[in-house]
Amino acid sequence: MSVRVDLNISLDGFAATTDQTPENPFGDDWGRLTAAYVATRTFQQRVLGDTSGAGTTGVDEKYASEYFDNIGAEVMGAGMFGLHNFPDDPDWRGWWGEEPPFHYPVHVLTHRERPSIEFANGTVFHFLAATPEQALARATADAGGADVRVGGGVETVRSFLRAGLVDRLHVAIAPILLGRGVSLWEDLRGLEAGYDVESEGAESGVTHLTFRRG
Amino acid sequence: MSVRVDLNISLDGFAATTDQTPENPFGDDWGRLTAAYVATRTFQQRVLGDTSGAGTTGVDEKYASEYFDNIGAEVMGAGMFGLHNFPDDPDWRGWWGEEPPFHYPVHVLTHRERPSIEFANGTVFHFLAATPEQALARATADAGGADVRVGGGVETVRSFLRAGLVDRLHVAIAPILLGRGVSLWEDLRGLEAGYDVESEGAESGVTHLTFRRG
Repeated sequence: MSVRVDLNISLDGFAATTDQTPENPFGDDWGRLTAAYVATRTFQQRVLGDTSGAGTTGVDEKYASEYFDNIGAEVMGAGMFGLHNFPDDPDWRGWWGEEPPFHYPVHVLTHRERPSIEFANGTVFHFLAATPEQALARATADAGGADVRVGGGVETVRSFLRAGLVDRLHVAIAPILLGRGVSLWEDLRGLEAGYDVESEGAESGVTHLTFRRG
Repeated sequence: MSVRVDLNISLDGFAATTDQTPENPFGDDWGRLTAAYVATRTFQQRVLGDTSGAGTTGVDEKYASEYFDNIGAEVMGAGMFGLHNFPDDPDWRGWWGEEPPFHYPVHVLTHRERPSIEFANGTVFHFLAATPEQALARATADAGGADVRVGGGVETVRSFLRAGLVDRLHVAIAPILLGRGVSLWEDLRGLEAGYDVESEGAESGVTHLTFRRG
């Protein structure tokens, strides 16, 4: 069992974007940050439901196909589930409609308890007030020997990285400079200690950097 | 003729370090930032004068060997030459001793005029108060059809990048988080427009990212 993080970041380190508007709820920056990942065959199929086989098949796809590989459970922050956007809506079921791409239990860290939400495809959202260590213990039990993902957002990932709880960190670095957003790298000086690092360039110009516990 | 920049940066974007002390004038961070470059055969030979053939020969060496390739002249900031450290020493001849690794004319941007300094190996330092465009015109004339390097420091490079004067930017991204220093990426949102970007990973974990004017 290992604890994994996979994020898309810009060359200047931004993993979350801040140019959302009511008219453009994801923002242009987010589209540019994730363009190479969205273009992959895995994303087209697993997330968008396109079974035609469309999508890129190069280095980006190799990493995309590993994204859901052997993941048995996930931990995410309240913001990633949408609880900061819809704090008072008891019927909010996440951003992903009736086919969330997880297919496994997801533990959402929040101080407001809610009943769990179960989907037909195996995705179950649980809500818990817990430390990173406690949440990880719950997810590890759920994963039954498979890996656990810490999905996001950036603050949640950073808290797990700072606590030394992540075994494998994969960042897909888009070759763009956003100049604004939430930085992944703040307060993480020396993170590389204890990790082996591998760098692989994709045809898209994206760099796939993987930190693995040595 | 093209205008080139080559820099070593950390994963969090720092191209100059700030932990220098009188006892450790380069600082530990600088050593970690440049370790893979210093280890190459080209650096060992061209900069340190080791002709034994020692040094790495992989992807880092491929980029190191291109570092001095077809460069006919250089522009650098006053700080890179050392004028901020030794502003009142008329005998200061740079950090590089009597064998500076340039072997071509170098134009140092400074508001205090000084006589040029000439070395036996072809290196000549000129000092001029000029805009980036004016300095580039001088260096281009000197280069005689070869490429011109903008050597550093970070502020100088950023001023050339912002002015749209750089045709090829190569950054060697060390897989380390420094958390402090001078960032290359500040105020450069959208820099990628008009460039093709190529990413290549080295055995050391360093990523070589090259922006080429499209």
